[in-house]
Amino acid sequence: VSELRYDVTAGEWVIVAGGRGARPQEFIPGGAFPEGLPDWSATCPFCPGNEKETPPPVLSLPDPQQPDRWLVRAFPNKYPAMVPDPEPAESTGGLFQSRAGTGGHEVIVETPIHNQPPADFDDRHLAAVLRAYRERYLNLTARPGVRYVLPFKNQGEQAGISLSHPHSQMLALPAVPEREERRVRIASQYHEQTGRCLYCDVAREELATGERVVLQSEQFAVFQPFFASRPAETWILPKAHQASFSNADDLDALAAVLGAVLRRLREAFGDPAYNYVIHSAPPGTAEQSYHWHLRLLPYLARPAGLELGTGMWVNPFPPEETARRMRG
Amino acid sequence: VSELRYDVTAGEWVIVAGGRGARPQEFIPGGAFPEGLPDWSATCPFCPGNEKETPPPVLSLPDPQQPDRWLVRAFPNKYPAMVPDPEPAESTGGLFQSRAGTGGHEVIVETPIHNQPPADFDDRHLAAVLRAYRERYLNLTARPGVRYVLPFKNQGEQAGISLSHPHSQMLALPAVPEREERRVRIASQYHEQTGRCLYCDVAREELATGERVVLQSEQFAVFQPFFASRPAETWILPKAHQASFSNADDLDALAAVLGAVLRRLREAFGDPAYNYVIHSAPPGTAEQSYHWHLRLLPYLARPAGLELGTGMWVNPFPPEETARRMRG
Repeated sequence: VSELRYDVTAGEWVIVAGGRGARPQEFIPGGAFPEGLPDWSATCPFCPGNEKETPPPVLSLPDPQQPDRWLVRAFPNKYPAMVPDPEPAESTGGLFQSRAGTGGHEVIVETPIHNQPPADFDDRHLAAVLRAYRERYLNLTARPGVRYVLPFKNQGEQAGISLSHPHSQMLALPAVPEREERRVRIASQYHEQTGRCLYCDVAREELATGERVVLQSEQFAVFQPFFASRPAETWILPKAHQASFSNADDLDALAAVLGAVLRRLREAFGDPAYNYVIHSAPPGTAEQSYHWHLRLLPYLARPAGLELGTGMWVNPFPPEETARRMRG
Repeated sequence: VSELRYDVTAGEWVIVAGGRGARPQEFIPGGAFPEGLPDWSATCPFCPGNEKETPPPVLSLPDPQQPDRWLVRAFPNKYPAMVPDPEPAESTGGLFQSRAGTGGHEVIVETPIHNQPPADFDDRHLAAVLRAYRERYLNLTARPGVRYVLPFKNQGEQAGISLSHPHSQMLALPAVPEREERRVRIASQYHEQTGRCLYCDVAREELATGERVVLQSEQFAVFQPFFASRPAETWILPKAHQASFSNADDLDALAAVLGAVLRRLREAFGDPAYNYVIHSAPPGTAEQSYHWHLRLLPYLARPAGLELGTGMWVNPFPPEETARRMRG
């Protein structure tokens, strides 16, 4: 049957269905990559040789084996959702309040190879992608008027890509998203009441319970939270307390678990489309009021009217089942 | 370029992009109905003659022209997201809190004709669908342990349907979705401060400004709010203050505007898939702390990592443009 589970980090209820009597529903598989892509495309602006099709790079990491070629490359989005504004406007008040689109929007091309899925990157390559995230994260959070920076990735058409060449995005915003503001508030209250970090406690309890753990390493806990809002939603969370991704120092260790998770997702669920985001404490937040984590959201079920209309999620597959499947 | 707009009803920022320099993005059209559907299907559990494939009806409205046949029919969902529980459990506390799936989940078949889109229902027929919503709404809200009831509709595969025969759903929940709880709190504070209903004021200002109005009738304002979170998001809101849909008395007038809106959506945007929800004051809410409204969410752009990861929406098409297009 079904139950409501409470996301203690966000203060939200999630409907977790499934188990006996569940709808004979199938996962949505095979959406991460179109079939039959070439390894280079003359018309792809992200492929080597077409660099002039994109704005000048803000970062370029060389391929250690061919130092004259890039491995990872970042540049401003040609069609930005947010553009830097030298003189940010403030709210005008009243019922219709707006704020200029101050901030930034960048693209990070993750590989020179057009058809190389991130699940096939070696750990060293994936660590370079993560270093690019961290470097651009630091740069964007330092801009005047920026209150929140989100590294995120869409893989597969169902996950919202318009170009199939593997890439991530960095969005810098002049306001903190309401949900993240709420999560900071909740973690802050929890710390006041208990003296502990809410996310540290959740991770500790997930590792102790074990049934939703996907894997773990010395540095990272990888689990599908009790209150997973979508099928196989997976968190990668540093075991040692750390509020912001900007301070993450062992990106090789993070790359090792992220690579393993992406490969297990592909094996367990037939290469579904996916999104991931890296949530950090908004700049200026007290160290004890947040704990950064990478949140992977596979596209295994389609959100519908209920989710979009209310913000309340229905997860048709309990995390206990999907985590077992990914443990292998 | 782009700007942040503030949803004063939910306390959330929305990114509204578009205008000059916008990405050469296309609307996603044509998803409301598959091509070439027959008007009756032997394998469709919602078609006349196949009534035994569904649980016994809880409501059946006759076709006025053929009183021995049904026009609209409601029954419990065979695969419910929420099932009634005679002894609802309460939260157990701790980091992993759950609650039994008390409530209900019903299907409302809107027409006996397998391939008849709701945009083609005549007003009398659409009013019968709305009467079914109201009757089931009243029944479900009266159940013990039910704190929120949501009538909602998915039309088209991209909007989440699994059966194409036109139907809606009623979901009864043992908790109020966080977003709706927050909206009640905000409207209640606004009323304390101003003595007025927040939604009445928003509607009045939208009608006065005019540029986001789609249409209006004596009883209803139909507009795409300043802070529309998705392309062509359209609100139908009674002009006279009323907290709950359960008290809506002129369903013929509502049917007239809803039918017009669905037809204009089809004409303006090439028959896109869509969802709609009817938001009411949660049972027991003070009359001044909410104002019911039907919220139509066409599927014209695909949500991606940013939206799913943060709950913050990017609307690539400003409501001023999409409303003009639907005014015709």
